[in-house]
Amino acid sequence: MITLAVDCMGGDHGPRVTLAACRQFLDSHSDAHLLLVGKPDELGAFRHERASIVAASEVVGMDDPVEVALRKKKDSSMRVAIAQVKDGAASAAVSAGNTGALMAISRYLLKTLDGIDRPAIAFGLPNAKGGDTTMLDLGANVDCTAEHLLQFAVMGSALVAALKNDEAPSVGLLNIGEELIKGSEVIKRAGELLRTAGEAKALNFYGNVEGDDIFKGTVDIVVCDGFVGNVALKSTEGVASMISGILKQEFKRNIFTKIAAIISYPVLTALMKRVDHRRYNGAALLGLRGLVFKSHGSADAIAFEHALNRAYDAARNNLLDRVRSRIAVAAPLLLAAQTEQETSAP
Amino acid sequence: MITLAVDCMGGDHGPRVTLAACRQFLDSHSDAHLLLVGKPDELGAFRHERASIVAASEVVGMDDPVEVALRKKKDSSMRVAIAQVKDGAASAAVSAGNTGALMAISRYLLKTLDGIDRPAIAFGLPNAKGGDTTMLDLGANVDCTAEHLLQFAVMGSALVAALKNDEAPSVGLLNIGEELIKGSEVIKRAGELLRTAGEAKALNFYGNVEGDDIFKGTVDIVVCDGFVGNVALKSTEGVASMISGILKQEFKRNIFTKIAAIISYPVLTALMKRVDHRRYNGAALLGLRGLVFKSHGSADAIAFEHALNRAYDAARNNLLDRVRSRIAVAAPLLLAAQTEQETSAP
Repeated sequence: MITLAVDCMGGDHGPRVTLAACRQFLDSHSDAHLLLVGKPDELGAFRHERASIVAASEVVGMDDPVEVALRKKKDSSMRVAIAQVKDGAASAAVSAGNTGALMAISRYLLKTLDGIDRPAIAFGLPNAKGGDTTMLDLGANVDCTAEHLLQFAVMGSALVAALKNDEAPSVGLLNIGEELIKGSEVIKRAGELLRTAGEAKALNFYGNVEGDDIFKGTVDIVVCDGFVGNVALKSTEGVASMISGILKQEFKRNIFTKIAAIISYPVLTALMKRVDHRRYNGAALLGLRGLVFKSHGSADAIAFEHALNRAYDAARNNLLDRVRSRIAVAAPLLLAAQTEQETSAP
Repeated sequence: MITLAVDCMGGDHGPRVTLAACRQFLDSHSDAHLLLVGKPDELGAFRHERASIVAASEVVGMDDPVEVALRKKKDSSMRVAIAQVKDGAASAAVSAGNTGALMAISRYLLKTLDGIDRPAIAFGLPNAKGGDTTMLDLGANVDCTAEHLLQFAVMGSALVAALKNDEAPSVGLLNIGEELIKGSEVIKRAGELLRTAGEAKALNFYGNVEGDDIFKGTVDIVVCDGFVGNVALKSTEGVASMISGILKQEFKRNIFTKIAAIISYPVLTALMKRVDHRRYNGAALLGLRGLVFKSHGSADAIAFEHALNRAYDAARNNLLDRVRSRIAVAAPLLLAAQTEQETSAP
């Protein structure tokens, strides 16, 4: 039996969406149990033999500052859900609540794994090969060191290994065009560390990749700092939504284009399905002593169910143990990297 | 009369593309004169009353390292074209050659303007409002300081003012979601500098923007360091090309979808026109004592002509003087920022 703790109050829509997703999820996973965390009067109507309600009297708002979420709302559904993981009552927690608060509370309650300085947010983006490219970090850390990037590569490899049953997923280091100055000092050093880790078989390092490689599917995992990752993610969301906006506008232009839209319906549906962000919902917070998954705040029931599926798969495939054992393999390298950095620091 | 120096040998296609574009350009600009720089035997067949050939015996290859381009090939078409600008024979130079070499040679021959530490690459990206958002830097500088970002904002404002006749274009600072840690120390400090510059009316500062704002058209100019800018640019190219690839694949799936493609032709053409990268060709190298424009290496004649148009418009609207006078206005701020940085440095 796999037990997940669900923050049912989080996200833009709260229980209306999360409970619908939980029902769907339970119906398709016969060995799953859910702890529905939230206000009992809003969750009480939900009945399922493999679901139980865990009361929490407060809700972290989407605009709540991290400090408020962390220090004032000690009985929030988000915090209680994560506490279930800490206490061993659940194998993973899922929330659509605000990312900053989720990361801060997770870090506070669960602590980071030995060998990991900073947790990272990892997410799968659709690629032209029909699969997805896992990217991390997507915004938990700005100003990363080369050592952090190496840690991200190790954690990302464990995540993809757990979710896709591929023991040696390839890792690319996000960099800029070779015709220009090749990356910053941090990136150059990260490249060296990753190459060393690759040679030691601690991971499968492909080399540098560029922004377009994310969507070409050149590698399984793309590693970058949280600032760059967040900008890349939001930029691509922006361009995709601009293109779909133009398509809609142009198909609505006149009676002929409207007919064209109807005739093209199967094509447009196929396109939407391939790039449907709902299918890619569910980011992993990696590097903690427990599994936490983040759903997009605006997720609908289908999208939230995908986040639940991802958390379930991760728990079922022992993601936490895999991260731990990969860190153990990479530990000498991580330690050497840190020592080297300290001795070379001014 | 506006005179442009054209590196006719640069890019993936060389004279075949550049000369065709030059002819189109001359036919539509009666007050333009072109200096066609390159190997006389490859350009000799071109005849136009407002074009003259300037001989250069070497060509910078697309894969040539910067050092080779700069130190070994002293008679390259790229270098001779830039030298025309330095000598006052041309108002601007245009090249489709490799970016690193173009930046290095431009910087070496032309030098940077007073008050500018580093030149930047600026480029207009299509936005949902039907206009374009100018983004800089796109890869000339990694590891930028807050002062560099302020300089980019000043130069970008001058560029948009010159090309669009808008004296107070809005500037956004590229940052990451407010729910997370808001940017690095450099970005926070850049925000302060930009706010001060905005209050002093040295520029029109909007505030922070995120990746998707580039394509929403929230501001006229988006400022970021070259690493982030380059990743954002390449990532969005990647996702756009993935979407167009899926559309092509799905429209070719069977006889019905093929018919749908034919019926949808006007819609797809309109889409392609709106996001056609050829229309957006021509990046400005800003911050130098002379105008240099960079065309995409793979540009066809239509795209290369757009780069020529952009250089022509910039020269005609006195971009260089505008950058100079905006720097003069912002000079006390730039100086104050630098002094502050120096005194606060360890």
